[in-house]
Amino acid sequence: MPSEFALIRKHFTRPARHTDLAVGDDAALIRPSAGMQLAISTDMLVAGTHFFADTDPEDLGWKALAVNVSDLAAMGAQPRWVVLAASLPAPDEAWIAAFARGFFACSEAFGIDVIGGDTTRGPLNLCPTIFGEVPVGSAVTRAGARPGDDLWVSGAPGRAALGLAQLRGEATLAGADRADCLAALQRPQPRVALGLALRGLASAMLDVSDGLLGDLGHILEQSAVGAVISEEALPLAPLQAACGDAALAFRACTAGGDDYELLFTAPAAHRAEVGALAGQLGVPLHRIGAITPPDQGLRLRGHDGQLRPLAARGYDHFGR
Amino acid sequence: MPSEFALIRKHFTRPARHTDLAVGDDAALIRPSAGMQLAISTDMLVAGTHFFADTDPEDLGWKALAVNVSDLAAMGAQPRWVVLAASLPAPDEAWIAAFARGFFACSEAFGIDVIGGDTTRGPLNLCPTIFGEVPVGSAVTRAGARPGDDLWVSGAPGRAALGLAQLRGEATLAGADRADCLAALQRPQPRVALGLALRGLASAMLDVSDGLLGDLGHILEQSAVGAVISEEALPLAPLQAACGDAALAFRACTAGGDDYELLFTAPAAHRAEVGALAGQLGVPLHRIGAITPPDQGLRLRGHDGQLRPLAARGYDHFGR
Repeated sequence: MPSEFALIRKHFTRPARHTDLAVGDDAALIRPSAGMQLAISTDMLVAGTHFFADTDPEDLGWKALAVNVSDLAAMGAQPRWVVLAASLPAPDEAWIAAFARGFFACSEAFGIDVIGGDTTRGPLNLCPTIFGEVPVGSAVTRAGARPGDDLWVSGAPGRAALGLAQLRGEATLAGADRADCLAALQRPQPRVALGLALRGLASAMLDVSDGLLGDLGHILEQSAVGAVISEEALPLAPLQAACGDAALAFRACTAGGDDYELLFTAPAAHRAEVGALAGQLGVPLHRIGAITPPDQGLRLRGHDGQLRPLAARGYDHFGR
Repeated sequence: MPSEFALIRKHFTRPARHTDLAVGDDAALIRPSAGMQLAISTDMLVAGTHFFADTDPEDLGWKALAVNVSDLAAMGAQPRWVVLAASLPAPDEAWIAAFARGFFACSEAFGIDVIGGDTTRGPLNLCPTIFGEVPVGSAVTRAGARPGDDLWVSGAPGRAALGLAQLRGEATLAGADRADCLAALQRPQPRVALGLALRGLASAMLDVSDGLLGDLGHILEQSAVGAVISEEALPLAPLQAACGDAALAFRACTAGGDDYELLFTAPAAHRAEVGALAGQLGVPLHRIGAITPPDQGLRLRGHDGQLRPLAARGYDHFGR
């Protein structure tokens, strides 16, 4: 049986393009560009918590990296390097090879060098840490939203949640929608180009990993603001058409995690410029509400024009 | 019960000293100093594989960071920042508080900012990723050893292995030695000052995590050289005095992991300068052998003067 070292070397050593020293020493060496801040994010994916243990390993490889790429997109940073720590229950070479294919497919799609890592035996656990660059002072944090700003979301949040509902037998999606929602769940597409284009336009931004309302709560808290969401403006129709259930569509859109769409605020003065990005980048952008002073918290303006309070509740791994 | 977010915020938010944006956003932001390379290392510690599940959480917090600090020391890099991803079986606040105390004790001992992380539910797994700085071109890799170089090791490798043998009931150590060996296992002291001082002197370096011979094997492989170790020069006497067993002392010194001493090579021309560091830094340094051409592999010169081949075998998590 090949050793850990041999397996990892075989499947995880590929040429690094912008790295001084990659896999194989005590540490990797990189040289950040002058005038840049380094943006760093780490995400741990645990079997049974974040994915089914029998998830296709190639999809899992893609997703393990994609969710980290998304964190950098949400800062307006350009992803550049990643290290991967992994705990594996047994050295199953076919599994490792497929996982590596998916992981490298994602790293190559976004021009990221895989520069190091650590592999050990234990319950299945994948922990990439990703590094990107952003010009000093240009990162878009969660703390910059101001009353009067527009509230935007990209893409079609809720598709991944419908895909998960399909896998769990809680929904039955039609053919094309089924493939589309499963792809959203299994092969999320981080919005890197959009994140970069929003530097200088967005006032606050994050990626929707735990549900739109719950993640919006982080912006409201860190920016010390409130928000009104317009039910009419939420992209519910395609979800409802896919699952035939208005309540499920609303829940998927507002509370479903795992879409990795960008949720951001921008001054109304930038509305036309932001709106134009949709066509330029081929990414749907929905202006779903507005930022308010903090005293009213988070509210929904229903189809009837009435304002109702909403709970900003995200996925808390210890809260259930 | 406090949520994940609240628990982590409470115990893991402390002021960062040299960080632009720390815990709480999609990514942390740091600004590496001009003229520096960034050295990056990640180590995953899994309950049952790397430590007993009932390990004192404060010790574990120290060690989880210390082993990563050691990787940077082994490059000659100055540790500066760390992110911590963790999977925890349940939100046990006393455990988290104690773990955080140990983790911050180590971060403060070495001037490291804790700048971000991720916490999730799952089998106990701790995964810090650490970043340090080293002047461009000054990092000490594993690939620079040349025939004729001296081979050195710091401290007293084998103490952690004796501590583990004590915990497993495989050895009975006397009072002072017992405390000393358990401390080596539970509160390893990464050799940061030594690593920094060896820049410009050492030709190759790594930290002994999997056993002296096994780790030396990485230097031999990556530098394409061989080595002769002198049995006489190995710091065996204190180990033998502690455990009263010559064979166990030899095994602990040459194959015991977890000491995080530095194993390095240096040109013989630097011998006096290297030797002087022991006194300057208060760290024992042992010149245990020499680098040879690759054809003879790794050999031991016994007390009888005879050369015998040695297997360079480290701890392989999948090899047992």
